[in-house]
Amino acid sequence: MGDPAWEQTAGGVTAPRGFRAGAARCGLKQQGDDVGLLVCDGDGSAAATFTTNRVCAAPVRWTRDVIDTGGVRAAVVNSGNANACTGERGLRDAEATARAAADALGLEPEQVAVASTGIIGHFMPMEKLTPGIAAAAEALDSSLDAGLRFARCIMTTDTVVKEVALRCDVGGGTVTLGGATKGAGMIAPGMATTLTFLTTDAAIEGPLLLELLRRAVDVTYNRISIDEHMSTNDTCLCLASGEADAPPIEAGSEAAARFAGALTELCGILARKIVADGEGATKLVRIDVVGAPDEATAVAVGRAIADSPLCKCALHSGDPNWGRFVSAAGYACPTLDEAKARFTIGGKLAYAAGMAADTPPAELAAAMAGRDIVLRYDLGLGDADATVWTCDLSKEYVEINADYHT
Amino acid sequence: MGDPAWEQTAGGVTAPRGFRAGAARCGLKQQGDDVGLLVCDGDGSAAATFTTNRVCAAPVRWTRDVIDTGGVRAAVVNSGNANACTGERGLRDAEATARAAADALGLEPEQVAVASTGIIGHFMPMEKLTPGIAAAAEALDSSLDAGLRFARCIMTTDTVVKEVALRCDVGGGTVTLGGATKGAGMIAPGMATTLTFLTTDAAIEGPLLLELLRRAVDVTYNRISIDEHMSTNDTCLCLASGEADAPPIEAGSEAAARFAGALTELCGILARKIVADGEGATKLVRIDVVGAPDEATAVAVGRAIADSPLCKCALHSGDPNWGRFVSAAGYACPTLDEAKARFTIGGKLAYAAGMAADTPPAELAAAMAGRDIVLRYDLGLGDADATVWTCDLSKEYVEINADYHT
Repeated sequence: MGDPAWEQTAGGVTAPRGFRAGAARCGLKQQGDDVGLLVCDGDGSAAATFTTNRVCAAPVRWTRDVIDTGGVRAAVVNSGNANACTGERGLRDAEATARAAADALGLEPEQVAVASTGIIGHFMPMEKLTPGIAAAAEALDSSLDAGLRFARCIMTTDTVVKEVALRCDVGGGTVTLGGATKGAGMIAPGMATTLTFLTTDAAIEGPLLLELLRRAVDVTYNRISIDEHMSTNDTCLCLASGEADAPPIEAGSEAAARFAGALTELCGILARKIVADGEGATKLVRIDVVGAPDEATAVAVGRAIADSPLCKCALHSGDPNWGRFVSAAGYACPTLDEAKARFTIGGKLAYAAGMAADTPPAELAAAMAGRDIVLRYDLGLGDADATVWTCDLSKEYVEINADYHT
Repeated sequence: MGDPAWEQTAGGVTAPRGFRAGAARCGLKQQGDDVGLLVCDGDGSAAATFTTNRVCAAPVRWTRDVIDTGGVRAAVVNSGNANACTGERGLRDAEATARAAADALGLEPEQVAVASTGIIGHFMPMEKLTPGIAAAAEALDSSLDAGLRFARCIMTTDTVVKEVALRCDVGGGTVTLGGATKGAGMIAPGMATTLTFLTTDAAIEGPLLLELLRRAVDVTYNRISIDEHMSTNDTCLCLASGEADAPPIEAGSEAAARFAGALTELCGILARKIVADGEGATKLVRIDVVGAPDEATAVAVGRAIADSPLCKCALHSGDPNWGRFVSAAGYACPTLDEAKARFTIGGKLAYAAGMAADTPPAELAAAMAGRDIVLRYDLGLGDADATVWTCDLSKEYVEINADYHT
């Protein structure tokens, strides 16, 4: 693809043309806004990916159904309550949530995606949420600040707000892409992510948008892990308004390739923001697996390292205990050949020919001292590669999750 | 099988007839005995299972080769150094270790199994180990106390010594089985275990012993997880002396079934001792998965709960946060039906019909307050079941593994 066709720009979901966002507080969380609306005013398209967890929340079921109609133009979201493991009543509540948003926006309920995040197993307090939706509708605005407030209202244990926008030259014009995401725990996306809202003013048909979204999510969100626990509520929704001064994006075109690159970068930036904000995390760790026999094996090796508490503790203390990293690969790659494998930390060779390399341990330790750590495992078996992102495991993670009581 | 045919008795690896054990200190660990010998004086058989990690230690390679000759009569073991990721030199050191033990015992090197545990990636200091083996040989003794010293010399981060012995009525006579095991971290056996030494005075052919050992390990050691990280050195060795006053055990016989039951119980007790001694662990957790479509799915659901840091933190604080347990099953069982699943904590129903059951939260909390916790997930899909054992995740685990520097 040559040089990237995109550059970062200010804002988030309201950076592209044709979008409004609004947020309000209705009392589901202990403090701050906890309900939001995102509206696409253009006559565009929508696509989404969802958790593959069989225990999936009521709003995921609702949105999975309505997204297939092709008519979704808005999303309503709340934090503080996941509406998961809530049975038939949960489904009725999700539908009522869509209906309340549709009423406020002059849409049909089937045009509204619903997303929720928060505690599992409690019924949604509709008496709080319904007036909250009306208040969020009154706050709707196309400003960048409105996008920021929207990004903030979906936060739970997040410590920083997560939004980004990119401008992409698709040839013949420029389109803008924006996104907001949340998440810091229960993060190991299986086919989607925790809640993510992407917007673009590109003119693009729904099926093509879904194809590009799936691939972008697969190589970004599906390759991060904070704690290997897949959420019940993962949803990644992308709305396109078609309001940009650019020709429609056709499948197989150069414009589609450029747009796909920007969409993947957008998802990648947001996914890395989640890992960097991992519960109790002090390190952001990039694991490059190269020389793999196939992409699935590369991902499996990266995940084995990302998910091993032993590796995560070594990352936490900045200890170049390469035996832990190397042995994690040993149970993830069934054709691993120790004689061919090479493992580097921050570019310094730690392990080769089945044993310790002669890099001084102090140099390896220095490569793990900072906040950003790059591990690279060359399996020496083929041409496939994958990058997986993770964070360290700290006492604070245990504290946060042992103290977060039901 | 009716009533169990076994009962617990005193001692460990020297409880059966025809075994001697010895231990000594050679300076591989900071303190305590760190080298041991186990000798089978009878003319019996041997079987073993090993790690499936492709990054496997030199002693595993040596023992995997010699066990196939059928002539293994002794084992030499050290703690403090794993002799893993040590290349060709590691293999030569493992062979030299077997040779030193064989010389001291009047055996051939191929009759000696080698096992090591400790730090990965450092060459074995043979100048320490070789005289240590000679010292352990001088200490060889068939007393129960000698067995205890052997069990102690294989400890690394273990806080308690782990041994057990069972007497089993095989019909026409009684056989005794003994065992010693170690491990507290890097515990997620894949086909075997961390170091385990089993002995029996039964007369039993090697192939039958291996068949029974494999099944016993599969339903015990292969169903525990402390931190989901498979070791490079897992070895489970079983030596049979044939010295018991009992007829030989024939394949397919009632005696074989009784012996298999006792062998499985022996492995189960030892495996649970490992979990109870998990690094930083304060809880011993039994996860019964029933109503599964097949055994593999039952194991996968149990492991998903056992390996989720979120679930382990809830176990640590005794919080009946059943949403975490239930959602872990959701990504491990692809055919899960929320309407059919039932989840209980200590016999109290927490979740059914896709939502919270009406058991008061205080009752669920009480069921998680003690050291022993029993979780039961009825998938309602079939007749298969499995039990997986795990422990909680505490700040002490992070402390132990962040501070354990290379």
